[in-house]
Amino acid sequence: MSELDRALTACAENVEEYLDRLLPKSEMPEARVIDAMRYATLGGGKRIRPFLLVQCAGLFSVSESRSYRAAAALEMVHCYSLVHDDLPAMDDDDMRRGRPTVHKEFDDATAILAGDALLTKSFEVLADPDTHGNASVRANLCLVLAQAAGDHGMVGGQMLDLVAEQSQLDIPEITRLQRMKTGALIAVACDMGAIMGQASNAARQALHHYAHDIGLAFQIADDLLDVEGDAEEVGKRTGKDEAAGKATFVSLLGVERARDQAHLLAEQAAAHLEMFEEKGEHLKQLANFIVTRRK
Amino acid sequence: MSELDRALTACAENVEEYLDRLLPKSEMPEARVIDAMRYATLGGGKRIRPFLLVQCAGLFSVSESRSYRAAAALEMVHCYSLVHDDLPAMDDDDMRRGRPTVHKEFDDATAILAGDALLTKSFEVLADPDTHGNASVRANLCLVLAQAAGDHGMVGGQMLDLVAEQSQLDIPEITRLQRMKTGALIAVACDMGAIMGQASNAARQALHHYAHDIGLAFQIADDLLDVEGDAEEVGKRTGKDEAAGKATFVSLLGVERARDQAHLLAEQAAAHLEMFEEKGEHLKQLANFIVTRRK
Repeated sequence: MSELDRALTACAENVEEYLDRLLPKSEMPEARVIDAMRYATLGGGKRIRPFLLVQCAGLFSVSESRSYRAAAALEMVHCYSLVHDDLPAMDDDDMRRGRPTVHKEFDDATAILAGDALLTKSFEVLADPDTHGNASVRANLCLVLAQAAGDHGMVGGQMLDLVAEQSQLDIPEITRLQRMKTGALIAVACDMGAIMGQASNAARQALHHYAHDIGLAFQIADDLLDVEGDAEEVGKRTGKDEAAGKATFVSLLGVERARDQAHLLAEQAAAHLEMFEEKGEHLKQLANFIVTRRK
Repeated sequence: MSELDRALTACAENVEEYLDRLLPKSEMPEARVIDAMRYATLGGGKRIRPFLLVQCAGLFSVSESRSYRAAAALEMVHCYSLVHDDLPAMDDDDMRRGRPTVHKEFDDATAILAGDALLTKSFEVLADPDTHGNASVRANLCLVLAQAAGDHGMVGGQMLDLVAEQSQLDIPEITRLQRMKTGALIAVACDMGAIMGQASNAARQALHHYAHDIGLAFQIADDLLDVEGDAEEVGKRTGKDEAAGKATFVSLLGVERARDQAHLLAEQAAAHLEMFEEKGEHLKQLANFIVTRRK
């Protein structure tokens, strides 16, 4: 196990623990929605976004008891987007992380409500004084997350993805779609770490550029997995994009050039971290991990 | 037209203007989700929650340019909940405010995304320095709204409502359901006004009690309208609860006792406002309006 693997595993365990604590089981009659929120968030996922947030916050010596709260909040937003994305009215997916999706395990109404409640809870956690002693930091965390997750970010990207089913996108259009749909939440992970650490503008900018590059690399790697990956290993249906006739980085560039592009972006990402010296080591390794992962 | 009618109309016009400004039209390919957000929020509604927020903030001389931003954010949460509630997987309603519901006018996927984006946008607006100069106020607005709208508030109430379809609730259970499903957002309207005005604990408590009473009165009045109202005048399907065999205040208390109870609550609500003297006049009148409205 590499040092990065150990760090990722430790992070995933911590995220699990914080999510478990922030979403306590309930005995009330409405507990079903809380059960669904727990099902949607606990027990899996690579926790890449939380890792980015905690690592970036760590560059500025933010305590883990704080950065993991924010990381769990961010992961709630990621998980809510998956729950809603999997619904029959959206992507209509039955499997996620090797298990039935939330609407399959519960029902459509519960899945809609659980997604809504996770999104709401994430702002509740960020706005709580336990997450940061400085109110200005808390308000700013809410602001940047909302910007990244909303109609100019993730949700806008999901809309674009639906609209794109009726048209063939070119590379600039796909890049924009990806930046909104998945890049925005990856970028805000780094930004939230910088905000918690009250980073200098230069440091915040460096992390911004890093996040931009790994976000794109991450999406290209995802497209490659959809083409080359094995459904069992990946934990969800593969070959989806091709079956849907969707333009992706891979369909437009071909496998070879797409892989080259992903590696180039990963190297470029790492180069933005020079100012952090050895403190940025995990983030550099992560850039490489993102483009070499098998699931 | 009474003074309250004039104040309500002026408020509704301002809310419309702020929503229009906070949700600007877009020419981008993902504009469909923004069109749906605008459709869901603009052009109607009594704007009771915004009125409560602005009136409560006004007790402490908060400027309207700020309180209307927060009011618009709160209304976005109310509207998102209606959009998701109307979905086929939830209440499956085709009409709202006399117009096709969002999923009827657009489609289910767009309705899900528009609801998600409205919820997200509301926190973006609240966390923005334009809404309040004090970061601690902004963070607190996000916190109380998230608490009121999430799994321990509105969404929990919606879950409870779905679960209740399989069981007969008694009066304490219905009261709890209502407090979560509609009372929490009405209560937080008043609380957000008090927070913006950095109100004393005594003033905040008084408004809390007022909000609790009008919240319950509002729900009983709604149940009465469902039984007695005319679909065309009310603007949505009536007789729903009875058709679904749902226990309501009216089915449990009967029309007469339910109406008496609503009026009693309205009087009680007004009594909590004594400390504000004539400044609380509109809020007192509103309590009466809520139980006498015809739609």
